[in-house]
Amino acid sequence: MAKAAEIICIGTELLLGDILNSNAQFLAKELAKLGIAHYYQTVVGDNPERIQKAVAIAAERSQLLLFTGGLGPTPDDLTHATLAQCFGVELVEHPEIIADMMRKFAQRGRPMTENNLKQAWLPDGASVLTNAAGSAPGIIWQPRPDLTLLTFPGVPAEMRLMWRDVAVPYLKQAGWVQQTLFSRTLKFWGISESALAEKVNHFFAQQNPTVAPYANHGEVKLRIAALADSEATAQALIQPVEQELRTIGGQDCYGTDEDTLASVVGQLLQQTQGTLAVAESCTGGGLGALLTDTPGSSAYFSGGVIAYANAVKVKLLGVETSALAEQGAVSALVAEQMAAGVRDRLETTWGLSITGIAGPEGGSNQKPVGLVYIGLANSRGVFAFEHRFGGQRGREWVRRLSANTALDHLRRMLLDVTHNNYY
Amino acid sequence: MAKAAEIICIGTELLLGDILNSNAQFLAKELAKLGIAHYYQTVVGDNPERIQKAVAIAAERSQLLLFTGGLGPTPDDLTHATLAQCFGVELVEHPEIIADMMRKFAQRGRPMTENNLKQAWLPDGASVLTNAAGSAPGIIWQPRPDLTLLTFPGVPAEMRLMWRDVAVPYLKQAGWVQQTLFSRTLKFWGISESALAEKVNHFFAQQNPTVAPYANHGEVKLRIAALADSEATAQALIQPVEQELRTIGGQDCYGTDEDTLASVVGQLLQQTQGTLAVAESCTGGGLGALLTDTPGSSAYFSGGVIAYANAVKVKLLGVETSALAEQGAVSALVAEQMAAGVRDRLETTWGLSITGIAGPEGGSNQKPVGLVYIGLANSRGVFAFEHRFGGQRGREWVRRLSANTALDHLRRMLLDVTHNNYY
Repeated sequence: MAKAAEIICIGTELLLGDILNSNAQFLAKELAKLGIAHYYQTVVGDNPERIQKAVAIAAERSQLLLFTGGLGPTPDDLTHATLAQCFGVELVEHPEIIADMMRKFAQRGRPMTENNLKQAWLPDGASVLTNAAGSAPGIIWQPRPDLTLLTFPGVPAEMRLMWRDVAVPYLKQAGWVQQTLFSRTLKFWGISESALAEKVNHFFAQQNPTVAPYANHGEVKLRIAALADSEATAQALIQPVEQELRTIGGQDCYGTDEDTLASVVGQLLQQTQGTLAVAESCTGGGLGALLTDTPGSSAYFSGGVIAYANAVKVKLLGVETSALAEQGAVSALVAEQMAAGVRDRLETTWGLSITGIAGPEGGSNQKPVGLVYIGLANSRGVFAFEHRFGGQRGREWVRRLSANTALDHLRRMLLDVTHNNYY
Repeated sequence: MAKAAEIICIGTELLLGDILNSNAQFLAKELAKLGIAHYYQTVVGDNPERIQKAVAIAAERSQLLLFTGGLGPTPDDLTHATLAQCFGVELVEHPEIIADMMRKFAQRGRPMTENNLKQAWLPDGASVLTNAAGSAPGIIWQPRPDLTLLTFPGVPAEMRLMWRDVAVPYLKQAGWVQQTLFSRTLKFWGISESALAEKVNHFFAQQNPTVAPYANHGEVKLRIAALADSEATAQALIQPVEQELRTIGGQDCYGTDEDTLASVVGQLLQQTQGTLAVAESCTGGGLGALLTDTPGSSAYFSGGVIAYANAVKVKLLGVETSALAEQGAVSALVAEQMAAGVRDRLETTWGLSITGIAGPEGGSNQKPVGLVYIGLANSRGVFAFEHRFGGQRGREWVRRLSANTALDHLRRMLLDVTHNNYY
């Protein structure tokens, strides 16, 4: 059987939901990168019997156990004492740990308290996994020839440093790292997960590279992951699959990996030497916030108007009071006038606007919560798009979808420009 | 033995570290609130044998199993099929689920694809746990008299709605909820976690209610939690502690529970019949987005100007070109002119502005990344505040802190108004 790792996070605060288990995500990502298989994660509270049971189960099915939490000085920090019991050994005091702690406390000008001494007691046979950033060391221990345990404190910053500086070199030297996983994520907007899955279904069964879909917040992703002994080999495996998926995805595929709709729009604006201004009603600034998430966005983003009140739509954007009276603030006409108005006043190549009903109040039969109009203006004219995002998923959902959908409309028009289909 | 719940999250994306397991945290928190014991969490990939093994272990040690993930339409969505195998039953097609899916797809104007039909097949004997927000339903199932399974999709928004609207009422009716944990969280801005902890240290050792500190994104929280059989009993335990903590916290304590700085500012504006307009540079709309997160914010928030480019600061806000030339866009003077300008043009009681260097580029020795000026204008005049948030934690950190700190300045001034210290 191939060897696999398992992550065991210890801490009642995880069972109470007080903290998010970001340590498990970090270690999972790192294991994937190192190509170390990893099939289970377990969370258990600060309870010695239950920790013992979880360790017994994990030690049967996995060969590398990574523990986080329970290394501190308080009475509920039980990890090392419980592991010693699990494998029938005593705890042994390490004077070098005490010396190290005393040095660290002295550096910070704080007295070392008695309870810290506990941290110097490790299971007999375990080596110290040095914690350069904090006082609680971890261990590297093979209680059986076929089983390796590494322990880390629960404090993410300390755990990450110890992982990088001590654990990864150890795992490489101990032969745990053969092949490394390289991945590329293709990102899609404007297509549902099921519709995309239908199109690319035949990729999901293939191995090396594997292709897997993910969806959240209206975005769909396909991750292509290859296990290889060098990045070049991995890229050679990934590249043809990426090419095929891009061809199938067409314009719905907006980018890869760290791209966002806002960053891609930014690149396209720079390529076409375009500038952008926004006029926002229901998103209240969220579209501008997305655009300016990207460092350097001042090269193409001028700013805009948050026209939350109708008076602001009229005064700063030149929306006609007759349009507001006859069509209402949430209408294609007002979206168009907002986009044209902000483009005109800020003297940009493009004007992009959003007006809609984010809810939970303010909907009607004719104009339900989730109804959103997006306006897009350029030198050729002005366009409006109607969307119905529904009210079930709440105000935040409508606002987030509105802002991203607005960016997507602009992206598609900019693609037409770059492909010379436009002018 | 007391009955306990276990959370089992299914998804290879969790093992790859692609996503943070926020579902486990949400369910853990909810179980704690309902007073349902919960000793283990397990994460397992989209692999039928390993899911079966994890279910076998969980079904031995826990009596209520909560599953997330693996309910979708793709081939790696295996939860219901695998659970049926675990307990030796067949899958049964539910025509009412197909009808419901067809209705939902029709509403969104999208065709339902073939692969969605899979979601209508549930283990024989299971009832439907309705998913109002998405297409994949969950199940409520007692495969044995002493074992209850609930399944939820991995999409957090859908899972949370199903939990609240269907699962919690079911668990109450089925006798799972005896004593409930009631909690109240006091929220603080403008004080560090360690400074606050120093002040309220003596509360941390007490039981029922317990007091625990949390900190993130510049905000500090104190959670007061009481276990009781009625809300009235819990409130009687919590109330005196809350009172003491509020007295100690003073104006640094801005609210409780669901309050945000933006919602509290909104309440204070409504109390004082004030209105607000914003002028944003480095936050690019983020301040407006925070303000309009609050439903009903149109009652006091008029809108504003995203003055990312200097030309917009001049044209739409009346910032003097001489101020920009002599002091620079990131200066107290420009912050003041932005605040006064937006207040003047939008005819509001208050004008609030932000101009700063979010980084990672654009800093200098004199004006480092993280330097931010906040301007605040009212009928009495205009004020500017200088902050240095540092560049180490990145662009998002500076932007988030800037927007919230701006709200906090306004909040403190509004408190002075309501306390009649002001006019």
